Amino acid sequence: MSDFPKFVEFHEEGPREGFQIEKTIYPIEQRVELIDLLSETGLKYIQVGSFVSPTYVPQMADTGELFNRINRKSGVNYTALWLNEKGFLKTLSANNVHIDSRLLFYTSDLFSQQNNNCSAIEMRERQRDWIVLYKEHGYKIETAYVMTAFGCNLEGEIPVERVLEDFRWVVRVCEETETPLPNLMIADTMGWGNPEAVKRMIGAVYEIAPGARVGMHIHDTRGLGIANLYAAMSMGVDLFESSIAGLGGCPFAGHGDARAAGNISTEDAVFLCHELGIETGIELDKLIVAAQKVEEIIGAPLMGRVMHSGGLDKYRRG
Amino acid sequence: MSDFPKFVEFHEEGPREGFQIEKTIYPIEQRVELIDLLSETGLKYIQVGSFVSPTYVPQMADTGELFNRINRKSGVNYTALWLNEKGFLKTLSANNVHIDSRLLFYTSDLFSQQNNNCSAIEMRERQRDWIVLYKEHGYKIETAYVMTAFGCNLEGEIPVERVLEDFRWVVRVCEETETPLPNLMIADTMGWGNPEAVKRMIGAVYEIAPGARVGMHIHDTRGLGIANLYAAMSMGVDLFESSIAGLGGCPFAGHGDARAAGNISTEDAVFLCHELGIETGIELDKLIVAAQKVEEIIGAPLMGRVMHSGGLDKYRRG
Repeated sequence: MSDFPKFVEFHEEGPREGFQIEKTIYPIEQRVELIDLLSETGLKYIQVGSFVSPTYVPQMADTGELFNRINRKSGVNYTALWLNEKGFLKTLSANNVHIDSRLLFYTSDLFSQQNNNCSAIEMRERQRDWIVLYKEHGYKIETAYVMTAFGCNLEGEIPVERVLEDFRWVVRVCEETETPLPNLMIADTMGWGNPEAVKRMIGAVYEIAPGARVGMHIHDTRGLGIANLYAAMSMGVDLFESSIAGLGGCPFAGHGDARAAGNISTEDAVFLCHELGIETGIELDKLIVAAQKVEEIIGAPLMGRVMHSGGLDKYRRG
Repeated sequence: MSDFPKFVEFHEEGPREGFQIEKTIYPIEQRVELIDLLSETGLKYIQVGSFVSPTYVPQMADTGELFNRINRKSGVNYTALWLNEKGFLKTLSANNVHIDSRLLFYTSDLFSQQNNNCSAIEMRERQRDWIVLYKEHGYKIETAYVMTAFGCNLEGEIPVERVLEDFRWVVRVCEETETPLPNLMIADTMGWGNPEAVKRMIGAVYEIAPGARVGMHIHDTRGLGIANLYAAMSMGVDLFESSIAGLGGCPFAGHGDARAAGNISTEDAVFLCHELGIETGIELDKLIVAAQKVEEIIGAPLMGRVMHSGGLDKYRRG
């Protein structure tokens, strides 16, 4: 049975997820302009950039400066990505930043080795230190992510039980440390999910963590992103991460290149919600303007659909 | 409750729907090569071109020659589009052609005026003549299409009842004329549908025509195409029209240009089916090869996703 939420919250990842993947470093003025446009849409969470190694990710080296330059809009939470303690401390020192403390779990050893130079189990144990670190600085943990929740290009299919292990760990450690349970985020990092798998996963997570707020980070690698969003919402999920214009993918990627793997497009996702009568607090027309700005910045056609076709309101008004 | 079919049939529309919309006329050799590649995928229905006015649609002027040149594969039905008696008679004279006799219904007067120079009701009455014409030539009616079934850019929202009127007409006239009921095709010509609207529509059509085979022609204008496919299949629908690589849309369309309105991509649709355990008789890898050929022909990135990312089998095999 369907149990759609009345209101769905979108966290915008485009400025970070999108520009991080591009080979070009785009002028900071353009990224400021985009973030300022996004601030006017009604989005309440915008991920501005990441505090990670400038050697490996030079595109994000000016994230601190970017935070200085944005025109902060009241009520909007500007966030950043970090992957270790050093990055977290750098994030703390940024202006205008909202610290959305998070825990990161890997279902795949190979992917964890690649990103963290340790096994998935070691990475999980490190999260105890992160909890202490966040508490020391007075932050509650907002979100616990389980990455490559449906499958991993390095390890293949991921069983539901593997994801549940991590979420059970979160539930147990939160109880032990008297920490409020964070949002439980199912991340389909490499686009392996399908609508039925999404529904099974969400059902299983609700079973082990009744009353938890469950969210999803969805990639549209194989074209099922919006169908997965629909399936998740039909299970009551009301929190999603998405990217303006579907940024993060690359239409110029060679065939079989993993770079063709953008997030679901924020404007297509919001369009779906509004068509289903689900509120988002976001103005679709303003999102479309921001999406078109991204396309102008990148200088190439992006994968979002509604940004090209427009919504339906103008036709309904007659 | 979900009632997914075990097997879903896809009718390929790319060679007609795709090249008809392009401003360029591509060499006939390239279109032959594409159709021959599609013939090897397991697809059983391929729409090769259309017999329409060469003045208005010069891209399709060589459809007869195209039919001569294809390497006809046994078991594959090569079809063509026609829009009036003259076109039908031209189609009859083509080589290698499968006549999939169809009836066309318009929910929107303005769209019917634009395409047929008559009202939707007049167009419906003309279908009586088409039934006679098809019978005279010994063809059964395969499909009855109701176009712009969810909404029309010219007339706005289309009520379900308006679609049902046409299908009721089909049921009644088929009874009167002792004609077997054709497939009832719900065409979202302009991309107004959403998954819940699709489910409501299909439920309503089953009610007025119990036992009928219902299909859908889905456009991905606003990014909901695959979600709509999923919703339709969850209602038991097992017949869809789609386009290789999502051909028919145009990533270079100006913002708000209706040309950004491709069909759902055959390979993304087939990928969804296989992930859900639904058979299609189609080899995904061969579809991807055909989709990449289309991109090579058009010389620009197309909107299909799986054609760029590949499927999951190679990762599952390890």
